[in-house]
Amino acid sequence: MTYDTPCVVVDAAVMDRNIQRAQTAATAAGVRLRPHVKTHKSTVAARMQLEAGAAGLTCATLSEAVGLSEAGVGGDLFVAVPFYPSPSKLARIDRLLAAGCDLSLAVDNLSVAGLLAIRYPSGGLRLIVEIDSGSHRTGVDPVDALPVAAACGDLFGGVFTHGGHGYPPGMAVAAGADEVRVLADAKNRIEAAGGRVVVVSAGSTPTAAHCVGEPVNEVRPGTYVFGDWQQVSNGSMTLEVVAVSVMATVISAPSADRFVLDCGAKILSKDQPAWVQGYGHLPQMPGAIIERLYDNHAVVSTGGDRPPMVGDQLRVIPNHVCPVINLVDQLLLTTGEVVPVDLRGHLS
Amino acid sequence: MTYDTPCVVVDAAVMDRNIQRAQTAATAAGVRLRPHVKTHKSTVAARMQLEAGAAGLTCATLSEAVGLSEAGVGGDLFVAVPFYPSPSKLARIDRLLAAGCDLSLAVDNLSVAGLLAIRYPSGGLRLIVEIDSGSHRTGVDPVDALPVAAACGDLFGGVFTHGGHGYPPGMAVAAGADEVRVLADAKNRIEAAGGRVVVVSAGSTPTAAHCVGEPVNEVRPGTYVFGDWQQVSNGSMTLEVVAVSVMATVISAPSADRFVLDCGAKILSKDQPAWVQGYGHLPQMPGAIIERLYDNHAVVSTGGDRPPMVGDQLRVIPNHVCPVINLVDQLLLTTGEVVPVDLRGHLS
Repeated sequence: MTYDTPCVVVDAAVMDRNIQRAQTAATAAGVRLRPHVKTHKSTVAARMQLEAGAAGLTCATLSEAVGLSEAGVGGDLFVAVPFYPSPSKLARIDRLLAAGCDLSLAVDNLSVAGLLAIRYPSGGLRLIVEIDSGSHRTGVDPVDALPVAAACGDLFGGVFTHGGHGYPPGMAVAAGADEVRVLADAKNRIEAAGGRVVVVSAGSTPTAAHCVGEPVNEVRPGTYVFGDWQQVSNGSMTLEVVAVSVMATVISAPSADRFVLDCGAKILSKDQPAWVQGYGHLPQMPGAIIERLYDNHAVVSTGGDRPPMVGDQLRVIPNHVCPVINLVDQLLLTTGEVVPVDLRGHLS
Repeated sequence: MTYDTPCVVVDAAVMDRNIQRAQTAATAAGVRLRPHVKTHKSTVAARMQLEAGAAGLTCATLSEAVGLSEAGVGGDLFVAVPFYPSPSKLARIDRLLAAGCDLSLAVDNLSVAGLLAIRYPSGGLRLIVEIDSGSHRTGVDPVDALPVAAACGDLFGGVFTHGGHGYPPGMAVAAGADEVRVLADAKNRIEAAGGRVVVVSAGSTPTAAHCVGEPVNEVRPGTYVFGDWQQVSNGSMTLEVVAVSVMATVISAPSADRFVLDCGAKILSKDQPAWVQGYGHLPQMPGAIIERLYDNHAVVSTGGDRPPMVGDQLRVIPNHVCPVINLVDQLLLTTGEVVPVDLRGHLS
């Protein structure tokens, strides 16, 4: 098959198995699965996850939540990135509540928690306090969880964390344990002061299998639905369960050790974890390395393999699938279906 | 003014001056200005460039060219990235020719040149042979220009290069000279064999001022319209003429030396030239460094400055503007106008 390159192709059967397998694992572990939609940015994929048994969905932005709600898949949503309640953000919250959405929002500081508690005195939404489990991004230390939870007032619903430090190879087990530990610590402190902690949410694609002990009752992986080279190279997934490819065409072969593909940074993105060489993996030429990435060119060294011909089409497994999906308007399924990336651009 | 962050804001007056100044410089140097639309991906901005006197437009993809043509600004287009003439690409060429477009296409190898010469025996388009001036991306060595030009047959129209090695600080003058040298060499070889070289095209934002000597008769800068931190830090532009900002809100301030903005890689992109520290420049906090970039979070170290408050909005000058514009659906002008990024997604 010849593709109009560059484009994103998804193996529908592999994707479906990934969705089912994660659901089975979560159910077996006795936790709710709340997949993160920032990976697929697609209401079609979100619906597949809910039909497989997901308890709800995780979003990165309020506008993603609005998009899900408007597509009829926004019954139970958690926006898991702290935000500041500016007028435009409050308007989205109001819209979601008016649509009957069971809405949870991330908070990690007193002022935002307090502002929301004043704005929504009658409830209707839940605030989930972010705890830092070691990635040192957003979130508070467990010892500081209680005052933030208290500032949420009646809106307080629970605690969550993201063990982002679990992504490098060999780190997932320890990071998963960190997630459980800090959430248990925060929960104990809040409960000791009389608070009620309903939601205890953790888990990314690398750590979800390693953080399902008490008191965690919900996991939020995203990447698992497609997989990517980062997850293969850190041992979280195998190449066989990667459902996504960027299809690219050789547009130039200026020397025996170098060729150029038409998949630049405007489709592969420049995401490159420290432990990954190059800007993506070529399964048909596993020794080749995407050395340089320009907006519309990927310069590949052959790594000693026989160079392809101009016009050949090659499959590239992207390093990190989330920014790749965010760069295209549609996913081409191997079944022939076209799935719109209808939440792309829902940034704010 | 409070923005619905993250978003891209463009100072309309600065942008307009950038467009005028580049046109004035090209006219004074006696070369045609053919701005690269991959930077702004906007038919509105393309029209402004043509109205200022641009001789035509440069595209990275055939679908960008189709978008320009359909918007009525596609009279004279050059697609400056080599491609393979698959059925979908040929269909776009046919569509552009049927619309009356004066179309030029990049080629850098015999097989594609030969295929196009067979497919379009009656002409109607021009093939421009890419010469490698030192960036070692696409393009042939000047000594190999003649056979590719010959394979173009009657479609051969000229030569072009991109001095991408002129981007690092201190490299622009030498790279501009390389551009002139290799184009002159290629032109001489082709003319010595009886060929007619009409187009001699060079020049990026860093090198355009340094490559306008004989025989160059056209320059193709793109970034100049907005500017970015890369161009400021390599000395090609000053901060005063940067028209673009990503507006972001402080969403978390977990410690005195760190805060988090809501402008992640899904708006700033992870583009980071080797000579630039961090993922963007904060003019209001020039010592601060965006140390880590996640999909929806930018983790900033204060660099000793007083940290901002949660809710504060800050301006970020992106490292590389092209992938940033490609991540949003619209540009907010300081005049209040909204300009659609209507060529975004035109990847293939």
